[in-house]
Amino acid sequence: MPLLDVCFTPELIHLYALKGRVVVVVDILRATSTMVTGLAHGLEKIIPVSTLAECQQLAKHGYLTAAERDGKKADGFDLGNSPFSYMEDLVKGKTLAMTTTNGTHAIRLSEAADQVVAGAFLNVSSVAAYLTTQQKDVLVVCAGWKGKFNLEDTLFAGALAHKLQGNFEFENDATLAAAHLYAAAQNDLMEYLSKASHVQRLQNLHIIKDIAFCLQQDVYEVVPVLEGNYLVPYIPETIKNWV
Amino acid sequence: MPLLDVCFTPELIHLYALKGRVVVVVDILRATSTMVTGLAHGLEKIIPVSTLAECQQLAKHGYLTAAERDGKKADGFDLGNSPFSYMEDLVKGKTLAMTTTNGTHAIRLSEAADQVVAGAFLNVSSVAAYLTTQQKDVLVVCAGWKGKFNLEDTLFAGALAHKLQGNFEFENDATLAAAHLYAAAQNDLMEYLSKASHVQRLQNLHIIKDIAFCLQQDVYEVVPVLEGNYLVPYIPETIKNWV
Repeated sequence: MPLLDVCFTPELIHLYALKGRVVVVVDILRATSTMVTGLAHGLEKIIPVSTLAECQQLAKHGYLTAAERDGKKADGFDLGNSPFSYMEDLVKGKTLAMTTTNGTHAIRLSEAADQVVAGAFLNVSSVAAYLTTQQKDVLVVCAGWKGKFNLEDTLFAGALAHKLQGNFEFENDATLAAAHLYAAAQNDLMEYLSKASHVQRLQNLHIIKDIAFCLQQDVYEVVPVLEGNYLVPYIPETIKNWV
Repeated sequence: MPLLDVCFTPELIHLYALKGRVVVVVDILRATSTMVTGLAHGLEKIIPVSTLAECQQLAKHGYLTAAERDGKKADGFDLGNSPFSYMEDLVKGKTLAMTTTNGTHAIRLSEAADQVVAGAFLNVSSVAAYLTTQQKDVLVVCAGWKGKFNLEDTLFAGALAHKLQGNFEFENDATLAAAHLYAAAQNDLMEYLSKASHVQRLQNLHIIKDIAFCLQQDVYEVVPVLEGNYLVPYIPETIKNWV
């Protein structure tokens, strides 16, 4: 049975094998949630970049840009990190250069993996289905908050563990902890997370609507997968010639 | 109210302030459990060292030595990492140079803190009482396993959070997660940990008796505190002149 493991923050990624594995990067609030939302609403591809400077550079070359720092939209970019702004006509058919405090950096650090996909509650069942077809060892890389552990990304890892139970082996401490926490939280994620640091940080920024949206499960079917420098919607090999 | 925070592995310690804080280092299986046991049984002081070479060097200078790597006693040293060997007459009045896979290293990394103490289930209430009298911010540093998160040290952090509830503020994600996990596990720590990686590793080494011992709460009252290079039993200022 393939293995499911969880890396609680990008700061620990050097302790894990990436080659031969599929990495699921998760940044529930809100990078990977917005990526999933954008690609589901017609965005063509996303270039995840680590720094504001890279994003500015790409803006000069005509790309649509999104930049968030410390929970707020950075000045001078087209989009911030609210999933609702990724539903607008503006994004359709476009390529978006995107940088966020934690999420896009985590994607860049995961590039040595066989595949890198973006996971969120919004597409959790599709991610689970994708992983089941791949039949490779999986590492969930939680974006965390500035290098530290966070609860919402951990709960996603736990939700994924619940869905993959029976098909993946996950008797390692990080995955067990994530699965236990999700078991306790699943009936009301919002209530469970109400004391979490980042949720409180975002509540102070008055974006409770964003949080509630990002905690919904299976709103979209798209699985963003990294191909070269771009995150694009995954298309199964079996139908690739037909689309 | 002072803050209680948890650092899940020594690999993340650079993300946390140490100055002005009390650090509680925890390595339930088994470094801090054996330290507590030894000092409770008459061991005078412990020199925690990071490497086997340092420990060998101190052996040449006549110190009693303890060394563990990968769960096993290292060759050529007096003691391993079983708490039962720390109850013997051999340790009485002695100074012990000690190195373990994770625990002693975590202590060395925490030295910049105002105080460093060793915590274990064996002395958890005494550690909580000590922290309450200090009234400083607290960071629990979990020794983890080779840089990764582990369950048993996290459960200790959760137990401490439960005991300090009301007197410390702990609305940060790591402490909340630890407290949630402990709430689910507290009725039967052994059962809860039965799938944990390090417990399985130790069970394969046939030291279930050690694990059961280390999961007992409040067997001892001693709080090992780092004074210079030595871990010694904490003696309150108020009675220091009398002992």
